[in-house]
Amino acid sequence: MVSFASDYTTGAHPEILKKLGETNLEPLSGYGTDPYCERAKEKIKKAIGKEDVEVEFLVGGTQTNALIISSMLQEFEGVIAAETGHINVHESGAVEYTGHKVIALPEQEGKISALDLSKYLESFYEDETYEHMVIPGMVYISHPTEYGTLYTKKELEDISKVCKQYDLKLFMDGARLGYGLMSDTTDVTLKDIATLSDVFYIGGTKVGALCGEAVVFTKNNKPKHFTAYIKQHGALLAKGRLLGIQFDTLFTEDLYFTISKHAMDMAKKLKEIFLNHGVEFFIDSPTNQQFVIIENEKLKAFEGKVVYTVWSKLDKEHTVLRFVTSWSTTEEDLKVLESCLG
Amino acid sequence: MVSFASDYTTGAHPEILKKLGETNLEPLSGYGTDPYCERAKEKIKKAIGKEDVEVEFLVGGTQTNALIISSMLQEFEGVIAAETGHINVHESGAVEYTGHKVIALPEQEGKISALDLSKYLESFYEDETYEHMVIPGMVYISHPTEYGTLYTKKELEDISKVCKQYDLKLFMDGARLGYGLMSDTTDVTLKDIATLSDVFYIGGTKVGALCGEAVVFTKNNKPKHFTAYIKQHGALLAKGRLLGIQFDTLFTEDLYFTISKHAMDMAKKLKEIFLNHGVEFFIDSPTNQQFVIIENEKLKAFEGKVVYTVWSKLDKEHTVLRFVTSWSTTEEDLKVLESCLG
Amino acid sequence: MVSFASDYTTGAHPEILKKLGETNLEPLSGYGTDPYCERAKEKIKKAIGKEDVEVEFLVGGTQTNALIISSMLQEFEGVIAAETGHINVHESGAVEYTGHKVIALPEQEGKISALDLSKYLESFYEDETYEHMVIPGMVYISHPTEYGTLYTKKELEDISKVCKQYDLKLFMDGARLGYGLMSDTTDVTLKDIATLSDVFYIGGTKVGALCGEAVVFTKNNKPKHFTAYIKQHGALLAKGRLLGIQFDTLFTEDLYFTISKHAMDMAKKLKEIFLNHGVEFFIDSPTNQQFVIIENEKLKAFEGKVVYTVWSKLDKEHTVLRFVTSWSTTEEDLKVLESCLG
Amino acid sequence: MVSFASDYTTGAHPEILKKLGETNLEPLSGYGTDPYCERAKEKIKKAIGKEDVEVEFLVGGTQTNALIISSMLQEFEGVIAAETGHINVHESGAVEYTGHKVIALPEQEGKISALDLSKYLESFYEDETYEHMVIPGMVYISHPTEYGTLYTKKELEDISKVCKQYDLKLFMDGARLGYGLMSDTTDVTLKDIATLSDVFYIGGTKVGALCGEAVVFTKNNKPKHFTAYIKQHGALLAKGRLLGIQFDTLFTEDLYFTISKHAMDMAKKLKEIFLNHGVEFFIDSPTNQQFVIIENEKLKAFEGKVVYTVWSKLDKEHTVLRFVTSWSTTEEDLKVLESCLG
Repeated sequence: MVSFASDYTTGAHPEILKKLGETNLEPLSGYGTDPYCERAKEKIKKAIGKEDVEVEFLVGGTQTNALIISSMLQEFEGVIAAETGHINVHESGAVEYTGHKVIALPEQEGKISALDLSKYLESFYEDETYEHMVIPGMVYISHPTEYGTLYTKKELEDISKVCKQYDLKLFMDGARLGYGLMSDTTDVTLKDIATLSDVFYIGGTKVGALCGEAVVFTKNNKPKHFTAYIKQHGALLAKGRLLGIQFDTLFTEDLYFTISKHAMDMAKKLKEIFLNHGVEFFIDSPTNQQFVIIENEKLKAFEGKVVYTVWSKLDKEHTVLRFVTSWSTTEEDLKVLESCLG
Repeated sequence: MVSFASDYTTGAHPEILKKLGETNLEPLSGYGTDPYCERAKEKIKKAIGKEDVEVEFLVGGTQTNALIISSMLQEFEGVIAAETGHINVHESGAVEYTGHKVIALPEQEGKISALDLSKYLESFYEDETYEHMVIPGMVYISHPTEYGTLYTKKELEDISKVCKQYDLKLFMDGARLGYGLMSDTTDVTLKDIATLSDVFYIGGTKVGALCGEAVVFTKNNKPKHFTAYIKQHGALLAKGRLLGIQFDTLFTEDLYFTISKHAMDMAKKLKEIFLNHGVEFFIDSPTNQQFVIIENEKLKAFEGKVVYTVWSKLDKEHTVLRFVTSWSTTEEDLKVLESCLG
Repeated sequence: MVSFASDYTTGAHPEILKKLGETNLEPLSGYGTDPYCERAKEKIKKAIGKEDVEVEFLVGGTQTNALIISSMLQEFEGVIAAETGHINVHESGAVEYTGHKVIALPEQEGKISALDLSKYLESFYEDETYEHMVIPGMVYISHPTEYGTLYTKKELEDISKVCKQYDLKLFMDGARLGYGLMSDTTDVTLKDIATLSDVFYIGGTKVGALCGEAVVFTKNNKPKHFTAYIKQHGALLAKGRLLGIQFDTLFTEDLYFTISKHAMDMAKKLKEIFLNHGVEFFIDSPTNQQFVIIENEKLKAFEGKVVYTVWSKLDKEHTVLRFVTSWSTTEEDLKVLESCLG
Repeated sequence: MVSFASDYTTGAHPEILKKLGETNLEPLSGYGTDPYCERAKEKIKKAIGKEDVEVEFLVGGTQTNALIISSMLQEFEGVIAAETGHINVHESGAVEYTGHKVIALPEQEGKISALDLSKYLESFYEDETYEHMVIPGMVYISHPTEYGTLYTKKELEDISKVCKQYDLKLFMDGARLGYGLMSDTTDVTLKDIATLSDVFYIGGTKVGALCGEAVVFTKNNKPKHFTAYIKQHGALLAKGRLLGIQFDTLFTEDLYFTISKHAMDMAKKLKEIFLNHGVEFFIDSPTNQQFVIIENEKLKAFEGKVVYTVWSKLDKEHTVLRFVTSWSTTEEDLKVLESCLG
């Protein structure tokens, strides 16, 4: 069975496992104070091209979203997100569990626009009783989005401008950031993101690690006593080396970018295969998540051969499927897929 | 440098890394639904010797404590713990962050007694206005405790009896459970624990895993929709395999017990070394954490050779040090330690 | 100056102040255990016509909403409400502060429909990963709604049926319930509400009291230790008499209904006045909140004479104003209003 | 029956009811924006003798404690209190419900000492892993304490000094502040309190009001958007006039102080009566709460005549009773009490 179900279906990039093995017997201090964490932070700063950023490692995406949002917001503030944003839909209310409302804005292919944001804020502050409403304190965007789409640099600049105008923090969920950065179509660099956002994270779990997300605070704005926040959220690993060694490996000799690029190459070929077989796309995604419309009767052909994710039922006769590539996707995997489209 | 600083200073048992490598390319479903998680659960049930228990995997100790306590208590209920209990002291208020008070009881070498518990509860319910106080809903004990001590079976039975009388859940934090079970002095088995407690966990992080704790619900009392709780707490790994494979390995051919036993053997030898050198013990610990009283002027001898944890300052001239053994402690490590004792 | 700004602009019905005075020197036990609270509860049960309901008094609307929702939901559950529902818009995130998501449904004039509810739930449970989403546990409706509109008995029955089908609690916010019950157009009785909902409250603050809401649990479903919940939320008055005496008064000789009826009579006359002057209505409200569309240039006529609430800007030349009647609205007030309409 | 059970057993001072009646028909804006609230704030500032303080009104004590603590602390911070402090014992975990730990210190007759505080803090920051513990952010003291005792000016100065040294906010719970200020034995003025604390409140509920506490922020440190915090906690009264009018009345012509003085005079006489009858005191309280030791066999004499609070069982033959005076205590009440002492 070949799986395109997601980018977390296989384990870690072999280089990571190798490094975990090599360092296994070194006694290291716990809770993220080991030299591998330090080294990984330095390498990430270099990759970003800004020395004044602060980097912290966390275990998973939902945890990271909840922790960043709750540690950077005042208690009465909420976070603005696209209606389809991960925090608004697929995190079991983890943000609300920390006491903060997710304020949903309309979206276009998973993205919010500076215009909608601006309209919302203008109308919010026109209301004299706004202190009876949840005061927006942050904007959450995912890049790539849950639909694989990407913001352009201009779009990010516009959103960032509105955020500054209304004193909102801009937070980018980069669970799949590598794929976004390696997309042919993007004009957004890691440095752009570090310049335009207040905080973002470089996803590990979905980009070759066993687990782990690298949070980057870009404006000397890491909340004071952030370790206490991490511990309080149950997010501090005793063996912090697990995160340090993984990110140290991912940011050695550009591995993070190389494997992201590989997934993107595979995604392009996968796209071509579908196009060649006349399959229609549900959305024009420039990253490693591809959404195709398949006639229900053709679903049988995949059985026992290829695993995918059912995204939604389009109509009685068609289903939207998601196919995702990753560091471990091979040409052989694609051939198996193609054989199903026969 | 040899480290006795804790049982989480080295990586994972090599068998775990090997298994992670072997399974690395298998595409598996995410979020703990993979066959390794299933297999690990079955093996743990067998090790416990009770088929009707329910097992769930979480990432770390503080996370596990907070999640179990908050998912099993009513909102107005608190959890009783020893003054020195980990949840009361060293978790940055993670339990309170979920809205629940930790009600501290006096302790003897890290343990609470059925008598103190009983007295507290009797006096609590005598107060007519007890609904203005935090209503106790659970008792938290750690076994081994933070001081390495162990409850006897009789002590557990007595505590369990009081819990039943007052309708309290009994929760055992087993972050270092392996060492407790393999101690020469204990009369408590895994099955006893599963019989006497309502919920407990088998610690992985401190017993040979990179991370991971196996929670055991013993009375068909796993909270409904527990996956939603896990997700809401940011504790659900996309690559759930990381936990499944580790516990599958640990509970294959008794590895968990073998490595715990090894650590205990090393602890006994370490104890002897200290005794032979006339070092006094701060507490008589029957497990892998040993607490010794060292004259301050002798601390220099360890420098550059042996790492330990400073537990507390006993008086102006003496310091209490903690030395911990683990799966990776070797005879050579002990020799280096001995060489420091002159 | 005459005020139609809201139904909380004047104090309490004089009968309440009189009773507070008469009982002032009686020493009473605190925290809602006094005989006036008991008496008020009995009278409310009689007014409802169901002896098996349970009544509790709280201080204000937002407090009541947050307390009911958080005490009746599991931690991972959310509450469904109309997009325009008070809990979703005007309570500063009080529900989210207790850890629960408000799941917004589309609304028609402030109401949700059984159909939309049903569609949402069907699609929710079709998703295999629904445990990664906020699981709906309750439906919140306001009656009258924030737009003054009312559910019909049929609509409530249909919503109630869907709730039962999906195991959802039905909670009715009755902050302005008196006006709803006394509306000419309604076919919904207090008994119907007690039969169809799981919990609702009879608003005092907006219906003649200084403060206070009477919560009614209809299915022997009052959360255990509810007093502890109230205290934990900071909602327990030491001088509980303040609530008991007010509701005792309101439910003596049908005062609650008489003053609601008075407000409704005034609302009808106010409506006629606007109609007679050719003013258009923004919404056809059958209760004491009336929404009219006024040309901006005509707003001056109200200045210094009549206070209203600006609801929203309709377009560049028109504003939507809200006019609200209450127990204290007089014919004289209406005459002043009429004089402004030229 | 005469009641000395507490200072909240009777209603409001008649002057308050009178004023509520006189203003009842005035249409006022809601949510604390009315002129009576403004006027009351000004009068309180004058009474304090500092123009730069900020005053806000809340409904009850537990609500006030939870709101102040949670709005002024960072998420990972805890509040230090005496073991016997109201927030640690009698508020159903309301502070923990907001996510913050109450860190209990030893107490002497309800008071904490600067020395104990200092020792705790010194030892806390000596621990290198203090970020794994709850970081103290505030000190909570009650004045009078739960035992009726009072801090001296020197004691407050010493505590305040330690707070400054360790960057802790000092919060005084003044639920019974009037009695403390009017005690013969005190050298602490309202201005001293406003100078030495960061925030405190002037209790209304237990000093002649139906409900209400006046919070005073003393260092231009009122949390930004405090109204949003109040609303989010369900603590904002629509008819804010209820609080404004009461405090306006209490701070007109020194009523607050006059009625507190009256209660203190009554307490002194009550004390004398007990002394004259050879009754022993459990504690030497200088305020309106008096604690006496009564032989169990003498309890019968009070039956049907006098109500008190059972504080605790001293031993098999003696009970500690609490007798409390208030604005409404009369010479006649005292005579009835005396008649029970035979």
